[in-house]
Amino acid sequence: MEPLQCGTSPIVGFRFSLHPMTGDFIQVIKGALRETDTTNVWMHTDDVSTVIRGRQLHVFNAAKSIALHAAKTGVHVAMSGTFSVGCPGDSAGDAYLDKGDELLNTDTSKQYVSSQFALYPMNNPDYMAIIYREVERAKALGVYNDSMHYASGIHGDIHDVFAFYEEAFANARTSENAHLVMTVALSINSPSHGGGSGA
Amino acid sequence: MEPLQCGTSPIVGFRFSLHPMTGDFIQVIKGALRETDTTNVWMHTDDVSTVIRGRQLHVFNAAKSIALHAAKTGVHVAMSGTFSVGCPGDSAGDAYLDKGDELLNTDTSKQYVSSQFALYPMNNPDYMAIIYREVERAKALGVYNDSMHYASGIHGDIHDVFAFYEEAFANARTSENAHLVMTVALSINSPSHGGGSGA
Repeated sequence: MEPLQCGTSPIVGFRFSLHPMTGDFIQVIKGALRETDTTNVWMHTDDVSTVIRGRQLHVFNAAKSIALHAAKTGVHVAMSGTFSVGCPGDSAGDAYLDKGDELLNTDTSKQYVSSQFALYPMNNPDYMAIIYREVERAKALGVYNDSMHYASGIHGDIHDVFAFYEEAFANARTSENAHLVMTVALSINSPSHGGGSGA
Repeated sequence: MEPLQCGTSPIVGFRFSLHPMTGDFIQVIKGALRETDTTNVWMHTDDVSTVIRGRQLHVFNAAKSIALHAAKTGVHVAMSGTFSVGCPGDSAGDAYLDKGDELLNTDTSKQYVSSQFALYPMNNPDYMAIIYREVERAKALGVYNDSMHYASGIHGDIHDVFAFYEEAFANARTSENAHLVMTVALSINSPSHGGGSGA
């Protein structure tokens, strides 16, 4: 039996799947991974998803870069995944906590993203207040799109969207309630975009 | 400001995205929705995802049918989403709680699915014990595939996989801790399947 404790490590993880809606999906996925510098994160891919782990800034930087490079193909791509912190399960990848502050992926190309997210602060009686606070922050930043069941819509340029997600993820956890989960679903180059709620 | 209370409704929801890895993704999605009888669930689609809500048995039945019908095209398809209960936000779809017990989608075609899931019992100090208990249940049922960061691998025939998910979702909540979230990521017809951990 594994230990039933969480919240012992500052390592951030993102388990995600990248879905290019094309028969050439393998080329798009491999290209996006190849064009992203992932040397600051621990990475492992299985038959369903990929996980990257490391310091928060490098995990978000690599995630954004992978999405951006897949988007540049022009293909309709989706990225769905879960950011987690505070429940590492084991210590694989902890060595990456020694990486410095320099971001390795600095492409600032503009790219519209429509997305949805949900925050799950674990074992925290005040979790609903935290969620509403971060949604209000999205409104103030101009990236809020829509309210909906079980999630909130966030859209705009990919750099603004990921900046909000990283900030929300940092703000929604405390040292007392260190286990935090955030799900995101991003849609890029979709024929449904441009009219808000659509098909 | 919306109320900060959860756990007041038995309505179950599933917000998901279906991703066929083909340029004909729209046809695959529309076909899967058309071939699924969704009259027992409330459904709404926006530019990123679709949500279905209703009684637990009908939500899981419709979700499985949508995945199965998409799979029958032979295309590599992924379904990712979040099952939620206990925090409806509002009452849209509550009328569907009056639906009977008869399942409307009864196709028993076999289909291999490799998937990953995570349980998030909210505001519950015992949540890690609940998660481990459900993972042990998967092992006993023969659908457990692998352990990994932030998730557990579940695979097998689609009917066995969904039966496990529905059972885990039912078991992981109590009347005192009614707000429960479960994320799932399914991969079907993938070239990476067949060898466990792959590309």
